Amino acid sequence: MSSFDMPTWSRQQLAAVEQALSDWVPPHAPADLGQAMRYAVLDGGKRLRPLLVLASLKACAGDQAADWMDEAGMRAACAIELIHAYSLVHDDMPCMDNDVLRRGKPTVHVQFGEAAALLAGDALQTLAFELLTPDNSHIPAQVQARLCGLLARGAGHAGMAGGQAIDLASVGIQLSLEQLRLMHRCKTGALLETSVQMGAVAAQANAQTMGALLAYGQALGVAFQVVDDILDVTADTAVLGKTAGKDADNDKPTYVSLLGLEAARKEAAALAAQAQQALQDSGLADTRALQALADWVLQREH
Amino acid sequence: MSSFDMPTWSRQQLAAVEQALSDWVPPHAPADLGQAMRYAVLDGGKRLRPLLVLASLKACAGDQAADWMDEAGMRAACAIELIHAYSLVHDDMPCMDNDVLRRGKPTVHVQFGEAAALLAGDALQTLAFELLTPDNSHIPAQVQARLCGLLARGAGHAGMAGGQAIDLASVGIQLSLEQLRLMHRCKTGALLETSVQMGAVAAQANAQTMGALLAYGQALGVAFQVVDDILDVTADTAVLGKTAGKDADNDKPTYVSLLGLEAARKEAAALAAQAQQALQDSGLADTRALQALADWVLQREH
Repeated sequence: MSSFDMPTWSRQQLAAVEQALSDWVPPHAPADLGQAMRYAVLDGGKRLRPLLVLASLKACAGDQAADWMDEAGMRAACAIELIHAYSLVHDDMPCMDNDVLRRGKPTVHVQFGEAAALLAGDALQTLAFELLTPDNSHIPAQVQARLCGLLARGAGHAGMAGGQAIDLASVGIQLSLEQLRLMHRCKTGALLETSVQMGAVAAQANAQTMGALLAYGQALGVAFQVVDDILDVTADTAVLGKTAGKDADNDKPTYVSLLGLEAARKEAAALAAQAQQALQDSGLADTRALQALADWVLQREH
Repeated sequence: MSSFDMPTWSRQQLAAVEQALSDWVPPHAPADLGQAMRYAVLDGGKRLRPLLVLASLKACAGDQAADWMDEAGMRAACAIELIHAYSLVHDDMPCMDNDVLRRGKPTVHVQFGEAAALLAGDALQTLAFELLTPDNSHIPAQVQARLCGLLARGAGHAGMAGGQAIDLASVGIQLSLEQLRLMHRCKTGALLETSVQMGAVAAQANAQTMGALLAYGQALGVAFQVVDDILDVTADTAVLGKTAGKDADNDKPTYVSLLGLEAARKEAAALAAQAQQALQDSGLADTRALQALADWVLQREH
């Protein structure tokens, strides 16, 4: 097995993702649309979803991925980041969370106006599917179609959008731990799971591998949200790059409000361990990047 | 050639589209999401885009379409209607056109609230791509991928969303006829063109046929918008099912404000004739449904 250094690998991948996003999110879209789209996506964000796609591709294809697999992986990585970005733009709007700060910058509707933010979010979602279906590409049509299908299912009514609807309906309502888990499994977990699956599809992984990676993605997704809730009460706004204490202020149920801080920390650690176990069970030779991402999710400070 | 009766054909197709939309737009999506999505899509609308898809499929495949072609056509028909429906939901929101009436009913944000309308529109867009990529289908992956690609390009920054951005930026500004054409070519024309192309792709039409149908779709798309502008000043709200006189009130440039009513009528007729000519040039044996749709676009009263 070749040597592996996570900081170096992730720095390289992040630079490539940033370049690809800059190449693919059009500056010349009419009126301010392109500028608003780029503002929403470029120069910010942890890029966890793209890294999950690329780490999953690496685990499944090794360092010997065909050129089209690398292209498919990068397109999938950017597509899922566009979906994530569109959801943040719409989530921040006055009729939703009404937030003015994101990634340390004014939110899109503050910078460009509400109508432009609405449109930019819409167009970012569409662009995700455009990226997955390039003209004149060597990516097999079957891979393109499966990537579109996975992304649509992860982002839609049974995934992210469904989770947001539950979230919206739950403000001021006492959710059970079970209901909270369902909400987060959809709202945040679905896209994280989808990221891992898209990387595997880009490498044409078999069904058994897909199953193991799905288990990893599911555990990781919930862990991510538990840590998010912990950070909402323990970190400050400057470090988070978004408004801290927001959930408590909005009277939203969180893992911390339901479990208490200490039990929430234990839950996060248990979930991260579950994710690592799924990788061991996968039979994949080199899951070091996926392992490192699970560590990061548990230990992150913003 | 088998006999053809447009009213019978379109009644049958519309019933099938309505049934398919009802089957595919999920009633059980979490919270109110499914209900808001269904409210936005079912029991309303002219369904011009689905009819264009199905008429194009019929022209390209004849009455001998393979079963999977019929399935692909119906999925494409519904997918493009979902994109159209999502754009209306978002367009009607207070930060955009702030309209309270659509298809004779309260708009989605009036009925369900702004946040739910935003989410429902988002999820309708995603669902379009989900419909195009069914699990366990006989539709070839190549057709699925091309349908996704066409839809994304028609709906996105270089198509519908781009046109809306130009529209947004043009309120109160004197556009030239050229700029107005570009705006409408994107805002309305792109999805109409895409409808025709998706029907042809579902029938695996060759490049020459695609070219002829694109010319038809382009002429039809502009004709549709010119007639829309005419109806905005000549029809009343009850017949339109949406607020009449809106464009003039909003100080938006229209074909009527730029050309005058009489010249706008001539322009619409010339464009419809151009669409019919493209069908004659296509070499397709039976374009009667497409012909009838071009007639309808010119003569419609709402």
